[in-house]
Amino acid sequence: MNHFFKVMGLDRVMGLVPGFPAVPLETLSLSRASARILGEDITADQDLPGFRRSTMDGYAVQSRATFGASEANPAWLRMTDTIAMGQTPTFSLASDEAAPISTGGMLPDGADSVVMVEHTEPVDDATVEIYKSVAPLQHVVDRAEDYGKGQEIITAGTLIRPQESGVLAALGMTDVKVFKRPVVAIISTGDEIVPVEETPAPGKIRDMNSHTLAGLISDAGGIPMQLGIVKDNRDDLFEACSRAVAQADMVLISGGSSVGMRDFTVDVLSDLPQTELLVHGISISPGKPTILARAGQKPVWGLPGHVVSAMVVFKVVVLPFLKKIMGKKDWADQGLTIPATLTRNVASAQGRTDFVRVDLQERDGKLYAVPVLGKSGLIRTMVMARALLEIGENVEGVEKDTRVNVLPM
Amino acid sequence: MNHFFKVMGLDRVMGLVPGFPAVPLETLSLSRASARILGEDITADQDLPGFRRSTMDGYAVQSRATFGASEANPAWLRMTDTIAMGQTPTFSLASDEAAPISTGGMLPDGADSVVMVEHTEPVDDATVEIYKSVAPLQHVVDRAEDYGKGQEIITAGTLIRPQESGVLAALGMTDVKVFKRPVVAIISTGDEIVPVEETPAPGKIRDMNSHTLAGLISDAGGIPMQLGIVKDNRDDLFEACSRAVAQADMVLISGGSSVGMRDFTVDVLSDLPQTELLVHGISISPGKPTILARAGQKPVWGLPGHVVSAMVVFKVVVLPFLKKIMGKKDWADQGLTIPATLTRNVASAQGRTDFVRVDLQERDGKLYAVPVLGKSGLIRTMVMARALLEIGENVEGVEKDTRVNVLPM
Repeated sequence: MNHFFKVMGLDRVMGLVPGFPAVPLETLSLSRASARILGEDITADQDLPGFRRSTMDGYAVQSRATFGASEANPAWLRMTDTIAMGQTPTFSLASDEAAPISTGGMLPDGADSVVMVEHTEPVDDATVEIYKSVAPLQHVVDRAEDYGKGQEIITAGTLIRPQESGVLAALGMTDVKVFKRPVVAIISTGDEIVPVEETPAPGKIRDMNSHTLAGLISDAGGIPMQLGIVKDNRDDLFEACSRAVAQADMVLISGGSSVGMRDFTVDVLSDLPQTELLVHGISISPGKPTILARAGQKPVWGLPGHVVSAMVVFKVVVLPFLKKIMGKKDWADQGLTIPATLTRNVASAQGRTDFVRVDLQERDGKLYAVPVLGKSGLIRTMVMARALLEIGENVEGVEKDTRVNVLPM
Repeated sequence: MNHFFKVMGLDRVMGLVPGFPAVPLETLSLSRASARILGEDITADQDLPGFRRSTMDGYAVQSRATFGASEANPAWLRMTDTIAMGQTPTFSLASDEAAPISTGGMLPDGADSVVMVEHTEPVDDATVEIYKSVAPLQHVVDRAEDYGKGQEIITAGTLIRPQESGVLAALGMTDVKVFKRPVVAIISTGDEIVPVEETPAPGKIRDMNSHTLAGLISDAGGIPMQLGIVKDNRDDLFEACSRAVAQADMVLISGGSSVGMRDFTVDVLSDLPQTELLVHGISISPGKPTILARAGQKPVWGLPGHVVSAMVVFKVVVLPFLKKIMGKKDWADQGLTIPATLTRNVASAQGRTDFVRVDLQERDGKLYAVPVLGKSGLIRTMVMARALLEIGENVEGVEKDTRVNVLPM
C-alpha cells in the first residue's frame, strides 16, 4: 500500500458519488413519511379536485347572466336552494338562477362561476341582485385544475416537504414508499481523546467530533450511530471498523490527523475485506487529509481530526454521498447559495479549493459576508459562522467588496 | 360577540407574540439535545483547550531558535524524546532543542511553536535540521484560545446546531437543559372533508391541511398532534377545541373558511373558558380570514381552509408564535432571505401585505424569482414554489427585473 498523498480535486471526488447505491425502501404511513425521500414515482390516479368547487362564499351562476352587471345596473337572478357542503347539488342551474354556495362547495351542473357574496344583495327570499359581472371559471377551481388523472406529480428521489405530504393526502396515499434513513457510524480516534463524561487529564481533550458529526448526520436526515473512541491502536481500529461496516450504511472515522493515525486508518481500510481505497487526500482547505474507501458498497471516510475541518469536509464532500445513499435524486445540488458582499480581502492558494467560514450580517438592507478568522481547530469559529465561502482552485483570492455566493450552514 | 372582520396589520399581529410564554424546560442527554433550543446560558467553566496544542505534525521549538532558518542556512536543533499523544511532556524544552510532536499533542514547557515536519530533516538520531523559521504561537492552538474560563459562550434560546453540540461536548455537558418540543394540535373542519383513507364521494375532498400543517410543525421543531376532522357542528367543534387546548401547547383549526364555519370558530373560541379573541382577520393575502385567540396562555388559530392559504399563514404568521413558544430568542428573525431578480410584473393591492409564491431558477449564475401563478386552492402551486415574495402594504406591485429578497420554504 502506497501511503503517499495523491491529492485529488474536488470534482473528481464528486465523480465517485454515483458508484454508491441507495439504501432499500420501506413503506411508512403518510404521517411518518414527512421529510423523507420518496421511493416511487407518483402519478395522479384521479382528477384533483374531482369536481368544480367554489373558492368563495357567494352564488354559483352562469357567468353570462352577469355580463354588464354593475351597482347602477344590477342583474336580478332567482335564488335556488342553498348548496349543502360536501353534497352533490340535486339540480341543474338555469341561466336566470343563482345558487347560494359556500367556499369549497360543489357547483351545480350549468354553473361556471361564483359571484362573491360582497357583490350581491338579496331582494327577497327568492331573488338576489348581482352588482358585478364574473368571467367563466371565476372564483372556482375547476375539475382537474390541480392535477389531471394520469399526470405525473412527483418523482422518486424527491424530498417530501409539507406540500408533497398534502398532495399524497389528496391522492389517498395512506402508505408511502420511502427510502430508509441511512445509518452512519461515527468512530473517534486518538490517544488524546476522552469521552464527554470524563474530565480530561492534562494533554487530553474531550471528543467533539462524535457530537458535531452526529448533529450534521441528523440534520441531513441520517441516523447517527456513535461508536465511541478508539485509541491509537491498529487492531482496535480494525475491529471497530469491521463492526461499523457491518452495522451501518456509511462510516466516518474522525481524528487520526497525525501521520501515525493516518497510516493506521489507511492500513485498516486496505485490510478490510472487499475494500478499495478511492481517495487519499483532497485538494481542499481545510480538509486535505481526507480518506475515502469503498467497503463492499459502503463509503468509509477518514476525516481530519480538527473539529472545524471535519465539519467542513462533511458539508462539502461527505454530504453529496450521503444524499445519494439516501435516495435523493438531486444529490449534486448543494442547495441555495446566498449572494452577499465580502467585507475584506481573502487570500487563497491556487490549485486547491478553499472554504472560508463567514458570518452573515445585514446592514441597511444589504447582506455582507464577514470572514471569521481563526484556526481550523477552534470550534468558536464555527459557532460564529453562518455560511461557507468557496474559493475555486484557479482563484488566488477574493477582493473586498466582491459580490460572492455563500453556502449557508 | 361582534363577528365583523376588523382586519389587523401584520405588524400589529406580530406585536402579540411576546404575550405567549415559552414551554417548560427538560434535561436531555447531549446526543438527544441536538437541534433543540438551549434552555440555559452556557459559560466556560474551564479554558478550552486546557493546554497549548500542536496543530501540525512536526517539532515543538522555541520560535526564536528558528529565526533566520532557511534551506541554505538551516538551524540545527537537538532532538528530545517524542511527545506521546495525550500525555503531559515530562521535560522543559531548552532553546537548542526540538521535540517531535504529532497533531493534537501537548507542547512542553518552554516551547511556543511548532515547525512542520515538511520543513525539517533529521540529520541523525539526535539532531534535526530546520529549514524554515516559525513565529511565536505558529502551528499551535494556545491554552484558552477557543474559549477562556468565565467567557459566555451560548445564551438560552439558541438553536443547538452541530457546532454548539461540539462546544457542549468540549465542556463536558453530558446533560443539557433545553425547551420541550411544543405539541401543536391540528383540527380540520368542514362537512366536505374526508380523511385520507376514505374515498371522497362527489362534492367531498380529502383532508390535506392536517398533513401539510403536520409537516410544517415538524420542520419547525414542534410535535404535530392530528385530531382529525370535525364536521360543521358547533358542539363538536367546541368539544374538539376544549380537548385540544387541554392537551396541546398551541391549536390550529384549519378550514372553516366559509362564513358559517368562521362563525362557528369564533363562537366556540369566545365560549372557551379564559379565552380572548385577539385577531379576527389579517391584512394579508392569502390568509385574510385568519383568527387568533388566547386560551389561557395558549394560542388558538383559525386558519383559512384553502391549502395554500393555510401554509402561507403558517409560514408568515403562526411560525413566529411557535418559535416564541419553543423558547427561541430570535423568534422575530424570519431567517435568511435570498436576493433574486423578478421575472415578471407582480400586481398587489395597497393596504395589505401580499405573499407571492415563486420558484427559484439559476441561469448563467444569476438567481431568478419566477412567480408561480394559480389559485390559492391549488396545492400544485406550492409543489412548484420554492420561496415566498413579500410585497409590503404600501406597495402597489413590483416590476419585472426588480431585485427582490425572497423567503425560502
